[in-house]
Amino acid sequence: MSETLFSDRLAAAVSRRASAVVVGLDPHVGLLPPACRPASDDRAEVAAAVERFCSEVLEAIADVVAIVKPQVAFFERLGPPGWSTLERVVARAREHGLLVLADAKRGDIGSTAEAYADYFFGAPEKGFLGADALTLSPYLGPDSLAPFLAHVPRGKGLFVLAKTSNPGSRTLQDLATADGGTVWSHAGRMIESLGESSVGECGYSSVGLVVGATGPAEAAKLRASFPRLPFLVPGYGAQGAGADEVAPAFDAAGGGAIVNASRSLLFAYRAERHADLGPGRWAEACRRECLAMRDAIRRALGSRSEAAAPAG
Amino acid sequence: MSETLFSDRLAAAVSRRASAVVVGLDPHVGLLPPACRPASDDRAEVAAAVERFCSEVLEAIADVVAIVKPQVAFFERLGPPGWSTLERVVARAREHGLLVLADAKRGDIGSTAEAYADYFFGAPEKGFLGADALTLSPYLGPDSLAPFLAHVPRGKGLFVLAKTSNPGSRTLQDLATADGGTVWSHAGRMIESLGESSVGECGYSSVGLVVGATGPAEAAKLRASFPRLPFLVPGYGAQGAGADEVAPAFDAAGGGAIVNASRSLLFAYRAERHADLGPGRWAEACRRECLAMRDAIRRALGSRSEAAAPAG
Repeated sequence: MSETLFSDRLAAAVSRRASAVVVGLDPHVGLLPPACRPASDDRAEVAAAVERFCSEVLEAIADVVAIVKPQVAFFERLGPPGWSTLERVVARAREHGLLVLADAKRGDIGSTAEAYADYFFGAPEKGFLGADALTLSPYLGPDSLAPFLAHVPRGKGLFVLAKTSNPGSRTLQDLATADGGTVWSHAGRMIESLGESSVGECGYSSVGLVVGATGPAEAAKLRASFPRLPFLVPGYGAQGAGADEVAPAFDAAGGGAIVNASRSLLFAYRAERHADLGPGRWAEACRRECLAMRDAIRRALGSRSEAAAPAG
Repeated sequence: MSETLFSDRLAAAVSRRASAVVVGLDPHVGLLPPACRPASDDRAEVAAAVERFCSEVLEAIADVVAIVKPQVAFFERLGPPGWSTLERVVARAREHGLLVLADAKRGDIGSTAEAYADYFFGAPEKGFLGADALTLSPYLGPDSLAPFLAHVPRGKGLFVLAKTSNPGSRTLQDLATADGGTVWSHAGRMIESLGESSVGECGYSSVGLVVGATGPAEAAKLRASFPRLPFLVPGYGAQGAGADEVAPAFDAAGGGAIVNASRSLLFAYRAERHADLGPGRWAEACRRECLAMRDAIRRALGSRSEAAAPAG
């Protein structure tokens, strides 16, 4: 088997769409557009509503973004029908040519980690989810990541948490270590060492890290320290960060990072600036917002490289 | 609503069974006794086999242990039918009067953490799992645990990872911090502060920590530092630790800790010492091994208190 490495698949897809935007599929039931709301609280009905919603999102955005990130918790919340919906949403995303990053933040050891890796990365025809990439927690250390790493040569990608976007990330991640580092910098080093053997032709590894958009200083340090790690940057939009905050996660050529937004894209129909579309065209509002986010990031990267260019 | 706190429910159940043993429900398909093996690899058939196996385990052990710990990954691996099986296994455990600790090690922020908390702790009649307690990852910090903590006044318990039993736990958990601590000691402090408001009549909080049986030195330090935190101690049996290694996790009165074993209990029928039963009586072998483990822990705690007693 000689699958193309995930990092090269990602770089090609991002370049094809000229967009580093990751659409987070976080289907908050309470925020669904009126046309998609479930008739009752019954979980099978809610799961069906979530499926209709996600399908329309995928249809609307497939030609302008490269990758989607289903947030597994929102499907898990709905029990078995939620998992069936997740499986069909992932299948549909792949039919649209989108890469699928399952946001599950799993972390466990030994045969337990193997079971998670089987499910998320295994082939759909064998009864598994078949995601392209997965988010993981670093806390249990490198042996806990090994069962996932085993799937990397078959074209799968990992994004391991380093520095997250929430205020509470300070408590453990920001701890100063005796050697002058931080826990997040050590996490970065661990992730780098796991990714060494899967650097693709694009120059990036298929093992990357997660650094929140709300930590631009940390992102800049991580970018400088780990030039071969792709970064997944969540926290754009509803969590308060904008294009200038995410720019430090990118390399000088404007590559090496993908930026996630969820609510601000999915539920763009609620924003004043898309009021002209009306709630019935909520999917169009989502698409429009994906393009606006892409352009904002491009502009921020562009003005950064102009600022860095030598005068005259 | 005035539910009894989880810590008091746990203390009462452990005392009633006179056993600190937690039976880990890790249904490795390849290790199932011949009578329970699925006819094919089809996930619905495998899930049905897992359900038969878990049901017989519960039947065999319900009067000798207080708590079971389904390892969510083994059910998740089987997709929607696996989740249906998990839900039925949890319901059956509760019918048997067992407490259920879902081992999921989830960790995320905001509305995502809420979605996980809803599912694991919500009521079965509302379409949720209805576990009594849940394992969690500490990496994202206290705000990531808040949505789970909100369920504690309603009788739910949390066990947050501090120091795990695997060799790779050294990489981040053992890092020396600039203030002379370690990452796991800081995790302990964070967990203690989250548990302050839920100390029950038993003297323990409903928020506890996980410390692997393979780290008796760390367990002793954590026990001394955090006298109000209950400890979940995995790693007994197949992972190599015995009763002497888990003893430091207990308080002087022999309380404050529960000890998990999974494979060594579930698949005891494979051990030479239970060969007299034959593979057909595999559930009896499991029960016998639960009693042997209970007795081994009791002996280790007894000889420890004798050693500590004043001479004469």
